[in-house]
Amino acid sequence: MIRVGIVGISGYSGFTALKILLNHPDVRLNYVSANTTTGFLADIWPQFRGRTPLFCESFDADKAAELCDVVFLAVPHTVSMEITPKLLKRKIRVIDLSGDYRLNSASVYKKWYGKNHTDSRRLGKAVYGLPEIYKAAIARADLIANPGCYPTAALLALAPLVSLKNHAIRTIIIDAKSGVSGAGKKVSGALMFSEVNESLKAYKLFAHQHTPEMEQYLSSMAQRDIRITFTPHLIPMTIGIYETIYVEFQKHEAASGLNALYRKFYKTEPFVRVLPKGTLPEVKNIAGTNFCDIGINYDRTRNLAIITAAIDNLVKGAAGQAVQNMNLMFGRPETTGLY
Amino acid sequence: MIRVGIVGISGYSGFTALKILLNHPDVRLNYVSANTTTGFLADIWPQFRGRTPLFCESFDADKAAELCDVVFLAVPHTVSMEITPKLLKRKIRVIDLSGDYRLNSASVYKKWYGKNHTDSRRLGKAVYGLPEIYKAAIARADLIANPGCYPTAALLALAPLVSLKNHAIRTIIIDAKSGVSGAGKKVSGALMFSEVNESLKAYKLFAHQHTPEMEQYLSSMAQRDIRITFTPHLIPMTIGIYETIYVEFQKHEAASGLNALYRKFYKTEPFVRVLPKGTLPEVKNIAGTNFCDIGINYDRTRNLAIITAAIDNLVKGAAGQAVQNMNLMFGRPETTGLY
Amino acid sequence: MIRVGIVGISGYSGFTALKILLNHPDVRLNYVSANTTTGFLADIWPQFRGRTPLFCESFDADKAAELCDVVFLAVPHTVSMEITPKLLKRKIRVIDLSGDYRLNSASVYKKWYGKNHTDSRRLGKAVYGLPEIYKAAIARADLIANPGCYPTAALLALAPLVSLKNHAIRTIIIDAKSGVSGAGKKVSGALMFSEVNESLKAYKLFAHQHTPEMEQYLSSMAQRDIRITFTPHLIPMTIGIYETIYVEFQKHEAASGLNALYRKFYKTEPFVRVLPKGTLPEVKNIAGTNFCDIGINYDRTRNLAIITAAIDNLVKGAAGQAVQNMNLMFGRPETTGLY
Amino acid sequence: MIRVGIVGISGYSGFTALKILLNHPDVRLNYVSANTTTGFLADIWPQFRGRTPLFCESFDADKAAELCDVVFLAVPHTVSMEITPKLLKRKIRVIDLSGDYRLNSASVYKKWYGKNHTDSRRLGKAVYGLPEIYKAAIARADLIANPGCYPTAALLALAPLVSLKNHAIRTIIIDAKSGVSGAGKKVSGALMFSEVNESLKAYKLFAHQHTPEMEQYLSSMAQRDIRITFTPHLIPMTIGIYETIYVEFQKHEAASGLNALYRKFYKTEPFVRVLPKGTLPEVKNIAGTNFCDIGINYDRTRNLAIITAAIDNLVKGAAGQAVQNMNLMFGRPETTGLY
Repeated sequence: MIRVGIVGISGYSGFTALKILLNHPDVRLNYVSANTTTGFLADIWPQFRGRTPLFCESFDADKAAELCDVVFLAVPHTVSMEITPKLLKRKIRVIDLSGDYRLNSASVYKKWYGKNHTDSRRLGKAVYGLPEIYKAAIARADLIANPGCYPTAALLALAPLVSLKNHAIRTIIIDAKSGVSGAGKKVSGALMFSEVNESLKAYKLFAHQHTPEMEQYLSSMAQRDIRITFTPHLIPMTIGIYETIYVEFQKHEAASGLNALYRKFYKTEPFVRVLPKGTLPEVKNIAGTNFCDIGINYDRTRNLAIITAAIDNLVKGAAGQAVQNMNLMFGRPETTGLY
Repeated sequence: MIRVGIVGISGYSGFTALKILLNHPDVRLNYVSANTTTGFLADIWPQFRGRTPLFCESFDADKAAELCDVVFLAVPHTVSMEITPKLLKRKIRVIDLSGDYRLNSASVYKKWYGKNHTDSRRLGKAVYGLPEIYKAAIARADLIANPGCYPTAALLALAPLVSLKNHAIRTIIIDAKSGVSGAGKKVSGALMFSEVNESLKAYKLFAHQHTPEMEQYLSSMAQRDIRITFTPHLIPMTIGIYETIYVEFQKHEAASGLNALYRKFYKTEPFVRVLPKGTLPEVKNIAGTNFCDIGINYDRTRNLAIITAAIDNLVKGAAGQAVQNMNLMFGRPETTGLY
Repeated sequence: MIRVGIVGISGYSGFTALKILLNHPDVRLNYVSANTTTGFLADIWPQFRGRTPLFCESFDADKAAELCDVVFLAVPHTVSMEITPKLLKRKIRVIDLSGDYRLNSASVYKKWYGKNHTDSRRLGKAVYGLPEIYKAAIARADLIANPGCYPTAALLALAPLVSLKNHAIRTIIIDAKSGVSGAGKKVSGALMFSEVNESLKAYKLFAHQHTPEMEQYLSSMAQRDIRITFTPHLIPMTIGIYETIYVEFQKHEAASGLNALYRKFYKTEPFVRVLPKGTLPEVKNIAGTNFCDIGINYDRTRNLAIITAAIDNLVKGAAGQAVQNMNLMFGRPETTGLY
Repeated sequence: MIRVGIVGISGYSGFTALKILLNHPDVRLNYVSANTTTGFLADIWPQFRGRTPLFCESFDADKAAELCDVVFLAVPHTVSMEITPKLLKRKIRVIDLSGDYRLNSASVYKKWYGKNHTDSRRLGKAVYGLPEIYKAAIARADLIANPGCYPTAALLALAPLVSLKNHAIRTIIIDAKSGVSGAGKKVSGALMFSEVNESLKAYKLFAHQHTPEMEQYLSSMAQRDIRITFTPHLIPMTIGIYETIYVEFQKHEAASGLNALYRKFYKTEPFVRVLPKGTLPEVKNIAGTNFCDIGINYDRTRNLAIITAAIDNLVKGAAGQAVQNMNLMFGRPETTGLY
């Protein structure tokens, strides 16, 4: 059994990690903590009443180290970089769901997250936990930077193109739509039911902190500098991310070639489903699952591919992917506990 | 033209009052204020951009008195009882949408609202602004206590029975369902989209502050002490109140008699629609309107009437009813600006 | 391994049964069929793409019998009574999720379902699949009448009272609220998104076909004739049932006694959670689970208990409960595949 | 008073036209009809119970002509082209909300609507009812082709650019999000609440019938051939359209110039609000109004403008715009009945 801890259980990613890990056949969930909330887990998340006697306490690195082989950090950014060094020092593996270790550069971190990075020497050393791309490295990693929700869908949707059609790409526009849980559980007037329901808006144009994450990993896959335009929108639903990605090529591509390319690229991946021609993803088809559904359309008159991708932002976009990474790190089949 | 002011425009009742009054053919909206929010109305409520140059300032009784014939107080309870005396002293008529002047007794107020009433000598002197029952008194009033949203639907649904079948009523149970805007615009974790959407709960059992309001006015109409059981529920929709009211009679009633009774009682009322036999109210049919739809069903095997009533909580349950009251106070047709 | 078939996979109960059974560690799902829809399961329910190669065909009793130990019937009423005899004759156990075998009387069936029962000799012989009440009989049953969604919540909420406080009960009113999936997947103008969203209505007053089911089993538990008033409402959410049940007693009860009564009654039941005093159920706490949460409140001034109960209508109210029954029928721990 | 008729009141556009016209101070609504639904208007749309004695009958051109100066056609495409000639022959002005008279070419109509046009000689002769662009012609028109919902937002968002920056535009991508009422009231399994709620999808890629409408009028404004990429999405809300439009220029533009350009272009338009720099449209700010809110953002590193636009699809996208056109046709202030 893998002995697991979760730090930061009061948010939606922590909640989803709990749901998955309590049902995982190879996991013993030994430790849960949260910053401001302590008490029986069942009182914090009444959904788990009767399921577990776990008690949530304030974080204690020694205790976590004693009880766990791996710890999920489902905490806000800036908290991870305080906790991670303490756990790694105690030889505990860490899967960090925050943005703290995804970027390579302290100055880029400062620019987009607005804070100085206090563990900057580890930047660039964590393994980016996108198993479809970095599987081998994940299996050996001590520190996983679990991808952001928007980047997960975008990178899976674009990886075949930037890896293999890279030279031919002219521009990439990512029009992303997210359910409200993506904004977290922090109380906010703008996220009250009466403000979100029956409405819709774009937000953080040119300013979302997931932009440099996408650009860094796309550039790394492409082995050249890739820039994107990323426009997130808030949608009146709780769960789900849908990205409509417009890729303009320098010259004409064969549409059938694109389909074959994607099919081949993801042939052995259990959680990426390249949809049949003419079929588009829908959020309901991936809700509650670790799947990423990808649809491929091509307008030959404009050399324009429209790649659509849908994920559950809390599963494949956060806790499910974290468990997928854990499975790889501990030599389990990738799908254990996720089907 | 009636010169009108609104104090407390940053909440949903204030917003709805603005929507109605800006379109009211006999109103000049001269003054708006809010406690913590100042600035151009169009910046506070972007829906009104381009519609009005009004500037929202902190409340100033002298200025309000100079500019207005009547002031709507769309403020939280306890704020009204501070502002109302200042306006009445300056001979300005007041329509108070809060709960401060609805109850007759300072001790009952203290019990349910948790605060001492600082203007208790006026308790019992305001006219309760339910036009279908108190029309004549409203026309002469200086101070209107505009009914709560739950009481509006309940009292309209029960008035014919308690007025005319009073002796025969054994018990009254009000199972009420409300959209989220009924909880106001105050930021609250429990009212975040991701917490409310796809959920539903009862709340404040035996403890909702609208209970004594309903009992007081039902008792007054019945001329005997009436007690109710009131159970509110939070529903994942923004607008609407639906009440399913179970009235058990001491003895058998004729169902056809009930229908006739309601029809006669509301015969000349423009905003109460007694639905045809077999037809039930639906929130969508009253959304955005000042109507109260009432359905009457009767189970003769149990001497049990089920009265269903639906209103828009922000219109007939708040701002629309306030405008209806204003129309009566200033000698206008009751429906002006509301159709 | 239990070899399982599902007939009627194109509805929401069938879909939910699929979700649970595909993850059940002791089940081999061998056979799926539907009336009008044939093809790969993954094409019918794209959520299962990549999960299963199952092919959905028109129902064939011989084939089902060859491949299955037990068949779930997730079909509309009237279809079950045609299929069930064929399966039982072939010695296949049947869990019927429709209403066809829940009632004891052909004439009551005719009255509420509007059709003649074509297998009426089996009425009263199926075991009612409410495990918390009929566990022993379920373990031995060949034919399970899986309870309706509304009755599941109501019977669990009332069983302790009618069993043990039966003599003291004066009236029972069940005010029920249901998500839209409870109405099934049949296309209907009244259930279109734009008609349901931001609305709410009561429906089928005194006329819902779950009424005699509740009365029959309550009467059976009470060993006297019990009548209820049942008012269902349609709520703008996809999943969930919430019932607010008003039980008036003949005389005063001790509230603490009620709590203790429920706690004792459900002490060993894994799927019923009697909530602590002062805590009310919420749909979000049971969504996606097989739990029934029950809250107990008592108004001593009126001898009135308000029992609130919440279930997921598709899990504990249909497919989850069916799997719970299957587990019992095949000697598995009741919770297998459901946690 | 303008004597008005509405043909096709059973759909959402007809309903919205009713709401607006019943409150319009200069209109007498004399005639309503629908294809399959006849009866009192209040029975067809219970929201209007008590508001109007109008009776809805099957369409009769002579009767409509006798009672009306202008008729709104809120019918499906292909129905308009049958009715319009009959009304025009009788000298009745027509505002057609369908797509039948928006395109200039019968072959383009055939391609996108899948039917032969039976009144093709009038194609290109109707005035396109986008008042912000074609005001003078609308005032003189006998036949208005009221714009589609998607084109209304797109054309208003792009008109200043294609009119004035036309030469510099390289590509236009319109990522559009629509509430469900945009799909009309026709019963459809894909639009059932349980299928749409908590989901989201793109649909009709490269295939939506509003595409040629947008291209035709953009090309006309630009006086050169303009092609767009248009991707509509279905959003779980009833009302609203939000378009995120990516315009890539051939060379660098000054962002401040774009703002000034839009502000000047719409300076005297009462229903287009160019939002201040840094402010983005939100559906809730235009819901229930005839406004189109437009936000302008510019990424100088990529010569890319992101124009966001929001309208109420049933008001500015259909019935409100039709009333705006009627006001112009009959010499009324454009905003009459719409504020």
